[in-house]
Amino acid sequence: MIKLSRVSTDSIEKILKEAQAFSEGKISKIEGDVFAANLFFENSTRTKTSFEVAEKKLGLQVIDFEADKSSIAKGETLLDTIKTLEAIGVEVAAIRHSETRYYDALKDTKLSIVNAGDGTGHHPSQAILDAMTIIQEFGKIEGLKIGIVGDVKHSRVANSGAGLFRRMGAKVYFSGPEFWFDEGMLVNGTYMQFDDLVKEVDVLILLRIQHERHERHFNFKPEDYLKKFGLTKEREAKMKPNAIVMHPAPINRGVEIDSDLVECERSRIFKQMQNGVFARMAILKFDLENKGFEFSDSNN
Amino acid sequence: MIKLSRVSTDSIEKILKEAQAFSEGKISKIEGDVFAANLFFENSTRTKTSFEVAEKKLGLQVIDFEADKSSIAKGETLLDTIKTLEAIGVEVAAIRHSETRYYDALKDTKLSIVNAGDGTGHHPSQAILDAMTIIQEFGKIEGLKIGIVGDVKHSRVANSGAGLFRRMGAKVYFSGPEFWFDEGMLVNGTYMQFDDLVKEVDVLILLRIQHERHERHFNFKPEDYLKKFGLTKEREAKMKPNAIVMHPAPINRGVEIDSDLVECERSRIFKQMQNGVFARMAILKFDLENKGFEFSDSNN
Amino acid sequence: MIKLSRVSTDSIEKILKEAQAFSEGKISKIEGDVFAANLFFENSTRTKTSFEVAEKKLGLQVIDFEADKSSIAKGETLLDTIKTLEAIGVEVAAIRHSETRYYDALKDTKLSIVNAGDGTGHHPSQAILDAMTIIQEFGKIEGLKIGIVGDVKHSRVANSGAGLFRRMGAKVYFSGPEFWFDEGMLVNGTYMQFDDLVKEVDVLILLRIQHERHERHFNFKPEDYLKKFGLTKEREAKMKPNAIVMHPAPINRGVEIDSDLVECERSRIFKQMQNGVFARMAILKFDLENKGFEFSDSNN
Repeated sequence: MIKLSRVSTDSIEKILKEAQAFSEGKISKIEGDVFAANLFFENSTRTKTSFEVAEKKLGLQVIDFEADKSSIAKGETLLDTIKTLEAIGVEVAAIRHSETRYYDALKDTKLSIVNAGDGTGHHPSQAILDAMTIIQEFGKIEGLKIGIVGDVKHSRVANSGAGLFRRMGAKVYFSGPEFWFDEGMLVNGTYMQFDDLVKEVDVLILLRIQHERHERHFNFKPEDYLKKFGLTKEREAKMKPNAIVMHPAPINRGVEIDSDLVECERSRIFKQMQNGVFARMAILKFDLENKGFEFSDSNN
Repeated sequence: MIKLSRVSTDSIEKILKEAQAFSEGKISKIEGDVFAANLFFENSTRTKTSFEVAEKKLGLQVIDFEADKSSIAKGETLLDTIKTLEAIGVEVAAIRHSETRYYDALKDTKLSIVNAGDGTGHHPSQAILDAMTIIQEFGKIEGLKIGIVGDVKHSRVANSGAGLFRRMGAKVYFSGPEFWFDEGMLVNGTYMQFDDLVKEVDVLILLRIQHERHERHFNFKPEDYLKKFGLTKEREAKMKPNAIVMHPAPINRGVEIDSDLVECERSRIFKQMQNGVFARMAILKFDLENKGFEFSDSNN
Repeated sequence: MIKLSRVSTDSIEKILKEAQAFSEGKISKIEGDVFAANLFFENSTRTKTSFEVAEKKLGLQVIDFEADKSSIAKGETLLDTIKTLEAIGVEVAAIRHSETRYYDALKDTKLSIVNAGDGTGHHPSQAILDAMTIIQEFGKIEGLKIGIVGDVKHSRVANSGAGLFRRMGAKVYFSGPEFWFDEGMLVNGTYMQFDDLVKEVDVLILLRIQHERHERHFNFKPEDYLKKFGLTKEREAKMKPNAIVMHPAPINRGVEIDSDLVECERSRIFKQMQNGVFARMAILKFDLENKGFEFSDSNN
């Protein structure tokens, strides 16, 4: 799964249903020795570990791949590395890469790729787990108002999420520093002042300040960002009674959100991480079933 | 298991008995898919590998965690990392960290922590495997004279070991450079000149010179340290007939011990490593059983 | 398996037959919990991953060993590290090390070592997988003409391969820059001008320019090397009708070989990688059976 725009709405609904079943104790184990690899060319705890747990729960054998000790350090291209893994017998790889659309160079491979984040492009498994978390709360996405706040321009989380939520019938609003907003985003949602947005939305998704992507252009002090575009206790108090707060994490405590609110009643941040494993299990199973692999299912 | 002072003597005896059973071929496998992670923020071969083998022998699924490629490199706190692993489904983590009492920040987690060494604090699994090795030799710890030599002030090995041995009825003696001895140690043992100590003890535990902890204050040449505070062949010849030599390793050959003595008849250094796997299996099983997990036992 | 000169021809033929059986779907699983480790002190994707897949297919438990985070970074010798792994219960280790004959220091261990490449010395599993690939093509090695081109002097691939092919009855030819040829190589083959060699051989093995080994002495521009000693389309057109092209990879595209030829009809480069897993399974099984371990075999 490279990006959700290539996946039918029926398939997405099937994946969301399967992910929910996994969260309720369903067990699926793949038949035979099937190999997966996780290629993370950017630092990650959550997503990499989440994929690894998902793979192991599905009974996949996980190959330890370290980008910086691989032959890529000897000058090998990503395509040659992927073709190598394919030849060696790896069937599926979760790949995170700082280059947007890195997958364009990898068309010529039979290995299934699950995009675990490409530069400022897409992050489909995050969108699926976010949708799953919202559905657990509201039973549906249709008709909800969902706000995404922060660096929406460079965020693959915003990009994948907004597209999916709009397609499933939500109204999407964006906020954050205006120079991080882009007319291209208007396809999926509208820009709103943050203090208006917090009162309006059912779901508030805060984005991480990606210091590693814009050292130069970002000149806020942490406390100033919190005051202007972060979730302070004052803003939290103005949210609708049942509205929830989400964040893809890792969190910059005291920047995007007041540290005390990270685990407040509205917060679904750790719930998102839990759901991440189930969402990735469903995605991996979907991709591997499409390649003809079989799973045996049971219940806990 | 954070430190042994929080564990009852009954529980320690149960763990030691279980560790011995594992060394004699007992097999325990955990029920279901249960995940462990090893978070080593300091270099390690022995302890990390030992935990990994122990976990896999117990049937745990082991998550590959690389501190330097984790979100900690994006500024995430250790607590948020641990809560993330907990949310993702990791049940137990062995943690080594250069910060003494790193675990104080981690009270608010349901994930079981096995302390694999905190700064100059504690190293409970080392103390358990050392006790196990001594009991294999002498049948008991009570009444033995145990000498610990080297940087006792900064050594978590000395700290955890001395406390346990004294509690189990041994007399503990310390030696080494006097500026590495501290009045606080007098609770657990007494200081003795090294040449007297070697003649007196049943068990001689040599500590590693931790070059990474005191570059500045340590100004011995290796051969001078060996001459003054290391186990030379001359000193070894003066030990009691049945006395044994131990070292937590890695060894600085020719510094703490004459290289030729590393595998001498008295040496239990490689035996300690063997026992390390069994001790860690017993600790992990103890912690996981306390969390309600079940194991099926059999014999080889 | 350290080097092939220590293995009887009967054993090599047994290994080649077993590797072929694995490629045709034979399954072998080791009895009990048996641990393997992969110690790669040089960057590698192919060989390390290949060993890991082979080990897991055989049902071995694979220990995650990271050279740069091990106690070797605290000054421990390779021997002490290996003896530690042995004490911890590791039965077999695949080792790659930049030091030629690193294994001489490791005689005193019961842990089985599979040499995954020592400096400019040997690389037996590469020779076995190359022989396997050639036999799949021609049914035998006897009587074939095999050319090895590039830095034959520093290449462990050339060294292990040439010895094996000659021993199995092939005629071996070398080419490449003359300062990379050595009289010592004459035992196994003869030097020939590259443009003559391409017309003569049944098998053309191109070696990787090992930039990491000879920054200083290598002063070709990539395009000049390709023109003089690389497989251009012009040279490829002059090869015998059934001749094949091999390369141990990673490939420097446009240096040893025109990028367009990497997957040409003659190329067995990705076939070699596939065979690598099966060859390593056969080698590991051979070594472990010699240590008394048992496997249960079945067919897919």
